[in-house]
Amino acid sequence: MSISQYFPIWDQLTQAQQDLLTASASKAQATKGTVLHNGSADCLGLLLVCSGQLRAYILSDEGREITLYRLFERDMCLFSASCMLQSIQFDIQIEVEKDAEFWIIPPDVYKSLMEQSSAVANYTNEVMSARFSEVMWLMEQVMWKSFDKRLADFLLQESVLDGTDQLVLTHEKIANHMGTAREVVTRMLRYFQSEGLVSLSRGVVKIENEAALRQLSER
Amino acid sequence: MSISQYFPIWDQLTQAQQDLLTASASKAQATKGTVLHNGSADCLGLLLVCSGQLRAYILSDEGREITLYRLFERDMCLFSASCMLQSIQFDIQIEVEKDAEFWIIPPDVYKSLMEQSSAVANYTNEVMSARFSEVMWLMEQVMWKSFDKRLADFLLQESVLDGTDQLVLTHEKIANHMGTAREVVTRMLRYFQSEGLVSLSRGVVKIENEAALRQLSER
Repeated sequence: MSISQYFPIWDQLTQAQQDLLTASASKAQATKGTVLHNGSADCLGLLLVCSGQLRAYILSDEGREITLYRLFERDMCLFSASCMLQSIQFDIQIEVEKDAEFWIIPPDVYKSLMEQSSAVANYTNEVMSARFSEVMWLMEQVMWKSFDKRLADFLLQESVLDGTDQLVLTHEKIANHMGTAREVVTRMLRYFQSEGLVSLSRGVVKIENEAALRQLSER
Repeated sequence: MSISQYFPIWDQLTQAQQDLLTASASKAQATKGTVLHNGSADCLGLLLVCSGQLRAYILSDEGREITLYRLFERDMCLFSASCMLQSIQFDIQIEVEKDAEFWIIPPDVYKSLMEQSSAVANYTNEVMSARFSEVMWLMEQVMWKSFDKRLADFLLQESVLDGTDQLVLTHEKIANHMGTAREVVTRMLRYFQSEGLVSLSRGVVKIENEAALRQLSER
């Protein structure tokens, strides 16, 4: 599959711009667990996801994590090319969550396309707005929603993403997604288990009562 | 003062674009406490601040607030025109914090400028990135920093903004800035007072030991 089938506004590019993208973009793949982008330590380029799943998260000085959003097929990752936009003053990590194939567009190539083409610049604006919206959603969750509701919500989302009610997830991993400590997760999962919402076994959380979990998350 | 002196990339607009802006932008003023923009309830337009100070915040269902960022002279407010960008899926409130004068640019006019001009689109991208960075900073504070450090930081920032160490701020108001309950603020301020960092009187927080407060905020 060529980049013309993945680049979102291909038809709005001139022939010269299409040629530039075709010549400069490279295809890559990476396996689960690979850290593709590590804050301001690199400026890899824009990632255009062909298959698999990426996770964007932030990292505290003490090594705590919180998941900001996920990227799926046809999603574009701007922040792995954040050197391109001087006003971006934060560091994001990008990790492969399910084996992935993706195009890499060099930051200077994309920057020159944004400067030439208002279509590319406006598309970039929409992508940025979408990511901003996801982070604002998370902010509201963290600020206003209690941890039991957030955890219920997280388990339901994972279940949809993986298409199963048997979630292969350690408490440590859940803590890393949610920006909290492992003990906090363990305590709440045990409470969920005592209420019959989930059952716990080594490295697995099984959803036992989806309806009740949903009711909790929406309360 | 005409809009040509406030619009950030005036020289990069064509004559026709400059004429359109001059004809369609209107000047307005509002006094402290006025809510200029109320989430998705309106699409006022872009605000270009001439003087004064605006505050952008989010509001929970229960009426709790948290300040996202402030806007000062020459800052542009995109989110009062969020109808312009379809991917913006969150509601922000904008309130006048110090009596303000500003230009209002109609959303459809700005949208057409973004479509015509990659310079305007890229400038908008930089503004969005800057706001995104401020929200990410706040997110990191909320996630990783304990409340005593955040409060110390907030008091120091307010002191710089108002150019005084006598902050005219109720505990309720501080709570609204920080997304917490009044009691939490009162408890921590009393602790700060007992440590000699501040002194409290009705509606006033006086900074008594700036160095110690700074040390706390940076720890």
